[in-house]
Amino acid sequence: MLTGKSRFDRRLSSILAHATNVFYEKGYEGASMRDLSRASGMSLAGMYHYFESKEKLLYLIQKHTFATIVERLRSRLEELSDPEQRIRAFILNHLEYFLANQKAMKVLSHEDDVLKNGFGSEIRAIKREYYRICTVLLDDLKRKKMLTFSTRTAVLSLFGIMNWIYTWYNPRVDGDAAKLAGEMGDIFLRGIRNGKNAKKAARVN
Amino acid sequence: MLTGKSRFDRRLSSILAHATNVFYEKGYEGASMRDLSRASGMSLAGMYHYFESKEKLLYLIQKHTFATIVERLRSRLEELSDPEQRIRAFILNHLEYFLANQKAMKVLSHEDDVLKNGFGSEIRAIKREYYRICTVLLDDLKRKKMLTFSTRTAVLSLFGIMNWIYTWYNPRVDGDAAKLAGEMGDIFLRGIRNGKNAKKAARVN
Repeated sequence: MLTGKSRFDRRLSSILAHATNVFYEKGYEGASMRDLSRASGMSLAGMYHYFESKEKLLYLIQKHTFATIVERLRSRLEELSDPEQRIRAFILNHLEYFLANQKAMKVLSHEDDVLKNGFGSEIRAIKREYYRICTVLLDDLKRKKMLTFSTRTAVLSLFGIMNWIYTWYNPRVDGDAAKLAGEMGDIFLRGIRNGKNAKKAARVN
Repeated sequence: MLTGKSRFDRRLSSILAHATNVFYEKGYEGASMRDLSRASGMSLAGMYHYFESKEKLLYLIQKHTFATIVERLRSRLEELSDPEQRIRAFILNHLEYFLANQKAMKVLSHEDDVLKNGFGSEIRAIKREYYRICTVLLDDLKRKKMLTFSTRTAVLSLFGIMNWIYTWYNPRVDGDAAKLAGEMGDIFLRGIRNGKNAKKAARVN
């Protein structure tokens, strides 16, 4: 049984990886079940039997990706209590996964709003949970250091900084995830500290 | 002649706007010349006659967008000499255009690498020019304030902060371009100042 299950898991992972490549190359709209079947070496009838639709495949890719990122993040955060270090761990965790799975991340960024109904709401719930973890990390720092930034703009700016790298990352020029996470962490953490602008804004409100 | 030209320009703008909508809804790969012809009310034969291919349409959309952004930016920068204010003007200019033309900006972000050969190299040159302006603005500030950040990571983080808003912007929650440009400018400009992290990094190197 165990051997059967792990063989099935490997086969599923391999099909999802091939499907990710096809979505990456052709875009979700441009990809057909026939393309997906060809790439993964499974018959078209088999694809429809096991996956029903390309929507289901996109759903499985997204679910697998987010579940993995959140799981790794939780085990990293367990070991840290300093709010700045926890935010740095969030950034490193995101970039490490992102850079090791660039095609999947591009597909996720691009096909953000394709999934409808049940699939869509399940993925949106996982994303909200990931977003919420980041919000809690920032709010912890904000309370502890009495900072005044807008949490929403800060969280979404941080996601922008991290996610935009799929358009420009060049390993020879930019180094690895740890180096980039350090530089981005420096910019972001200094950025949300209280400066003269923040104090001015606080006086106005 | 003038009337003819301006009528032609209006017709071209309208066709590009319709094509932007189609690319936005269906993705570049998923859109056909037939979809583009239907949306713009021009016959399929007319579309092929005037635009040759959907690649040419995407090229015209991208060229028009970047040319407009750079032109507005240049006229804003002419009036400013303070390096921080110039960076803030860059951010405001980008966000104003972005939020007023969200569909075009999403198409541009998504179909970044579709154009090949001549079209592609022309658009890449305009983008490089835009990127170069931002680099010069940051290097000016860096020199004047003796800062130590990586210009490349900073420029690309700033583009990430600004461009990612197409995934989350909600006018009722987030306010207008001026408000967001203020908040993002605060985070970014504080972020690239020298802090203890930057000094530590400088000692190590």
